[in-house]
Amino acid sequence: MAEPDNHPPVTSRRRFLRGAVAGGIAAGSLGGEARAETGKGADNLPPNVPEWMKTPGDPIGSQLYGMPSEHEKNVVRNIPKNAAQLISAASRSPLQDLDGIITPNGLFYERHHGGIPNIDPAQHRLILHGLVDKPLIFTMEDIRRFPSQSRIHFIECSGNPTYTKPYGKTASDLVGLVSCAEWTGVALKVVLQEAGLKPDAKWVVAEGADAAAMTRSIPIEKCLEDTMLAYSQNGERLRPQQGYPLRLVVPGYEGNMNVKWVRRLKVTAEPVYSREETSKYTDLMADGSAREFTFYMEAKSIITRPSGGQRLSGPGFHEITGIAWSGHGKIKRVDISLDQGKSWQEAQLQEPILTRALTRFRFPWHWDGSPAVIQSRATDESGYVQPTLAELIAVRGENSFYHNNAIWPWRIAGNGEISNAQV
Amino acid sequence: MAEPDNHPPVTSRRRFLRGAVAGGIAAGSLGGEARAETGKGADNLPPNVPEWMKTPGDPIGSQLYGMPSEHEKNVVRNIPKNAAQLISAASRSPLQDLDGIITPNGLFYERHHGGIPNIDPAQHRLILHGLVDKPLIFTMEDIRRFPSQSRIHFIECSGNPTYTKPYGKTASDLVGLVSCAEWTGVALKVVLQEAGLKPDAKWVVAEGADAAAMTRSIPIEKCLEDTMLAYSQNGERLRPQQGYPLRLVVPGYEGNMNVKWVRRLKVTAEPVYSREETSKYTDLMADGSAREFTFYMEAKSIITRPSGGQRLSGPGFHEITGIAWSGHGKIKRVDISLDQGKSWQEAQLQEPILTRALTRFRFPWHWDGSPAVIQSRATDESGYVQPTLAELIAVRGENSFYHNNAIWPWRIAGNGEISNAQV
Repeated sequence: MAEPDNHPPVTSRRRFLRGAVAGGIAAGSLGGEARAETGKGADNLPPNVPEWMKTPGDPIGSQLYGMPSEHEKNVVRNIPKNAAQLISAASRSPLQDLDGIITPNGLFYERHHGGIPNIDPAQHRLILHGLVDKPLIFTMEDIRRFPSQSRIHFIECSGNPTYTKPYGKTASDLVGLVSCAEWTGVALKVVLQEAGLKPDAKWVVAEGADAAAMTRSIPIEKCLEDTMLAYSQNGERLRPQQGYPLRLVVPGYEGNMNVKWVRRLKVTAEPVYSREETSKYTDLMADGSAREFTFYMEAKSIITRPSGGQRLSGPGFHEITGIAWSGHGKIKRVDISLDQGKSWQEAQLQEPILTRALTRFRFPWHWDGSPAVIQSRATDESGYVQPTLAELIAVRGENSFYHNNAIWPWRIAGNGEISNAQV
Repeated sequence: MAEPDNHPPVTSRRRFLRGAVAGGIAAGSLGGEARAETGKGADNLPPNVPEWMKTPGDPIGSQLYGMPSEHEKNVVRNIPKNAAQLISAASRSPLQDLDGIITPNGLFYERHHGGIPNIDPAQHRLILHGLVDKPLIFTMEDIRRFPSQSRIHFIECSGNPTYTKPYGKTASDLVGLVSCAEWTGVALKVVLQEAGLKPDAKWVVAEGADAAAMTRSIPIEKCLEDTMLAYSQNGERLRPQQGYPLRLVVPGYEGNMNVKWVRRLKVTAEPVYSREETSKYTDLMADGSAREFTFYMEAKSIITRPSGGQRLSGPGFHEITGIAWSGHGKIKRVDISLDQGKSWQEAQLQEPILTRALTRFRFPWHWDGSPAVIQSRATDESGYVQPTLAELIAVRGENSFYHNNAIWPWRIAGNGEISNAQV
């Protein structure tokens, strides 16, 4: 059970900003300008009339495609400062500045292996061949003719974070290679059925139309379960960085299998053993063997506010909020520890809780001003519980690079400064 | 019950593109260039290697805040060509080009009464006064300190469309003043409780910080039910066009009550009878009386594909899809008519079906190439059924301007051209 001070009942919520931030209105404190406002409510001391109310604002159509406020210009994707090159590289979503579960398309994380191709959709083709009754080539118009579906799913890079030190300072530095969107497209099952699968069809090898010809093998069971050929993201067509005009969405599988700019699907009896499933994206175990085909991203969570690089303004009420997700399905619960992992209390989960999608969690907290370590722990509907980093390393050994889903603690100093507690 | 040809069972779905669009691969049809591709699968005749695979693409960080492909530059908000001025005006979402239920922030519809103010969030204040125990002024930091919530809701202008002819040609022209997003903010109830409501508090008068000082009165029951002070939309901070840095979201109520750039909340015993709830946004009935305070947007739906201005490529399978919504709660069902409203068949609704949010519907259709009139009809969880335009006018008379939620039919000509069937 929660302590009363950590879970104030609704009837006590008037104490949220107690003595801290919201200014009471003392008579006369607002000066003559406010009193000079005529018309409704002037006797009730409204705030001064700001400059932007005194002249008409920008006209309709000043942005036929809208952009964020100029005051939000620092909320952008985050590129590692030490990146050796920018062609096979990544940029991270600014998780600590985001709310809810939908990542806006302009801030969706990127991971490219050969840069971002500029594809003319009229020229783009998808070939479906291999162990099928009838090989087919599709234009984008063909793809749009099929029955459509829309679902909200996260996509996450398998190295989010890697096991390599130093670990990131902010939530974005650390685990910003995850984002979530509403995808629309056609079920891959429907397209495979159009061509007809031969009995020995066991894998689908997907190839991207980028300069890296990014290639991954996907088990046929997953292709027939919930894999989608997606052309839209959050309502509009995919952005170039997310695979325009066509990508795979393989819900819950590691990011690079969600092949972007997909141009070829070859149905095979065996995986193709591409570079990205042998040299890369495999897990080197303690005994020197390599674990291949670690498809599913395991349950994970991160507190995004308060988080590294932020600062608490002072003691008092602070909501703890963050995101949780699992490649295996829905998030069942998230627990919060305020005492370095000694004890845990259940957070509230925001509805709707969707399968293989981000889930927003929240926990009310009254900070007493003393140093603290806070962390979140996700449990998914399979019963799997997010491990500590020590528990992960005990199982995986010291060679691991990908698939780090450890609990991540933030340290709060007495002055409110927040830093990564696991460095 | 559906005709077999309109609802093909899964086992017959291999007929979707039968004889129509997807190209079969005849041996040798792809020419020498495809055969010259070495490595994996060359024997299976992959398509020619496109130009964009031959050199690296754009680097990471070429867009720290991403934008759509240059090939989608025509998918923008839609301004009436005959607009007399652009300060108190509207732009519409391009519904016929959108998928799913989330409207991307760059394409969310706009309706301003005094232009778009450019507000510095550090200077913005929200005052809460009137019939409260303790008047309060909040900074944006104060607002962000409160417990947060996220919900997906539509917002719709009350004149979407108006009853004024000529009616629009496209889905956007006609009903593009509706959009849907995931909003994050604080429950207005929590903020009102912080100040303490006096016993005679019956209304909250909200005022925007735009040059029109947009002002509406909202019943206290709705303020305590599900009204939100929202600062984020689809994960990121509100766009200037949608009320940056703070707006009301009043789920299911007509759009102008979702006051943008909100700077003042005055708790009162009576509505303020502002211009926007007397001269405007009231319904002039047949007997000359004016119906005030038509808060809820009634159940509505529109087929977005195929829709006016589009053209069917030819007979065969075409999915009918669109959006439905109701201010009163969840959409319960959507029916489709293919015969000018004589008979109706139930469409599929895409999960999740959320309260006061857009719901995507789909209906499989084999067009035989003959002229047709198609339309959709929404039913919400209250049992309310979307009316025809004739039924609406019979009840409302000829004076109406706002609150037109009529069924809207599209006419499909023998050559596949689609136009508004109700002009």
